[in-house]
Amino acid sequence: MTVLTLGPEGTFSHELALRLKCDPIVLEPTIHSVFAGVAAGRGDGIVPIENSEAGAVGETMDGLSRYSLSITGEMYMPIHHNLASLVPLEKIRVIYAHPQTHEQCSTWLEELKEVPVIHTSSNAQSAIEAKKTPNAGAILSVSAAGIYHIPVIMEHVENNKENTTRFVKISKNPGPAPRAGKCSLLIDPDTDRAGLLYELLGVFAKRKINLTRIESRPSKRGMGKYVFFLDYAVNGSTDEAFSELESITTVRNLGCYPRIGVPP
Amino acid sequence: MTVLTLGPEGTFSHELALRLKCDPIVLEPTIHSVFAGVAAGRGDGIVPIENSEAGAVGETMDGLSRYSLSITGEMYMPIHHNLASLVPLEKIRVIYAHPQTHEQCSTWLEELKEVPVIHTSSNAQSAIEAKKTPNAGAILSVSAAGIYHIPVIMEHVENNKENTTRFVKISKNPGPAPRAGKCSLLIDPDTDRAGLLYELLGVFAKRKINLTRIESRPSKRGMGKYVFFLDYAVNGSTDEAFSELESITTVRNLGCYPRIGVPP
Repeated sequence: MTVLTLGPEGTFSHELALRLKCDPIVLEPTIHSVFAGVAAGRGDGIVPIENSEAGAVGETMDGLSRYSLSITGEMYMPIHHNLASLVPLEKIRVIYAHPQTHEQCSTWLEELKEVPVIHTSSNAQSAIEAKKTPNAGAILSVSAAGIYHIPVIMEHVENNKENTTRFVKISKNPGPAPRAGKCSLLIDPDTDRAGLLYELLGVFAKRKINLTRIESRPSKRGMGKYVFFLDYAVNGSTDEAFSELESITTVRNLGCYPRIGVPP
Repeated sequence: MTVLTLGPEGTFSHELALRLKCDPIVLEPTIHSVFAGVAAGRGDGIVPIENSEAGAVGETMDGLSRYSLSITGEMYMPIHHNLASLVPLEKIRVIYAHPQTHEQCSTWLEELKEVPVIHTSSNAQSAIEAKKTPNAGAILSVSAAGIYHIPVIMEHVENNKENTTRFVKISKNPGPAPRAGKCSLLIDPDTDRAGLLYELLGVFAKRKINLTRIESRPSKRGMGKYVFFLDYAVNGSTDEAFSELESITTVRNLGCYPRIGVPP
């Protein structure tokens, strides 16, 4: 099965697709174009949805809202960042990093007070800049450092060694109902009624359904109006809960799906 | 009063500080350094907290969580993006844009199918690249286009004409209790107890306190563990609600504050 994911070569998305032995892998320039490609029937997609340090990936949340696709699996990948450079640490005069990578490595980078960090548009761009600038370093994954032929001179410079990104698989059609796993749904409250969110959460609470995540996103109908993404663990009464939610407000099922293991 | 905000010259943060007649204005390289400067007593800060298209500003949410500062005001600024270029539209072969700016102008940019968009690390960087590249454009605010001396050749290319960014003023000490306005608080649920969020929202619902926003952020204690930012409208029973929340879980008052008008 063709899998579309975020390129260029060496992104964590690309690394995950390789580890899952997806074949062929099609690298897209943006997360939006992964969604558009899956909607056009070009294959399944793999996209990052949240990181344990940086939070939700807005472009993915908006893609789930904009396209009528289904989540058919979730994957958790440990994220490690490394300092890669053609020169030893003491000779480095500038470090290139993507802003989210910088955020995830801020503690270590702050200790290098005298070395400025320049933000780039991707980890691949960090590698390219570090190669063409004398005495420069880049913050990269091991696989990106390998692809761009820059030696890793310091491993695991991320703030939190448990740094993890959750990815989801997106497909044109829903997958088979999993015995265990999660469901995701998108709630669009339409109205501004006070207490509505409380009422919606009550639907889960009274059935002891474990809500694993709630994420608000702009509805794009003006400041202060939001939609909500909810994830919850599958149990015997999830269908009944969904029907009750539908009687209260506009709700869309984004899919029920299993967890897919990630080989090292 | 000295006000610290995000630079370089021509950011929306800078434009807001100018419109509010803040003097002197100190431009900081990152939102984190605005927080650090306010915590060090160098002045008040002005930071973007959410945009009606792109959602929460993660770096600001994390700053509120990390530093013991107070929100002392909120400001709503309309955001307009424009195409600026030294050449007419039909000669443009590449457009530079910050990823968030791209996201906010995606509809118009997608219509220009044959013109690639290159992501930059800031709107200022877009201006610099557009000036040094032949036949290039940049997506900029009117004030940034003026500062970098690039003519605006097409106005208001944003997806949504109601595009608005909400900013907050942050101070070392809480402001006076406002007669009308909002309060913000940070809830750290510590435990994973099912139904806890439902119980917390009940504290507001039973007092008819209007919850205007709920935003989850990673707790940074591992994937799947979140803290919650809540905004609610001030009413007669907000103190009582806060005491009840404190009896249930760990909660921090981020301040009660008025809305500050933004001169055109």
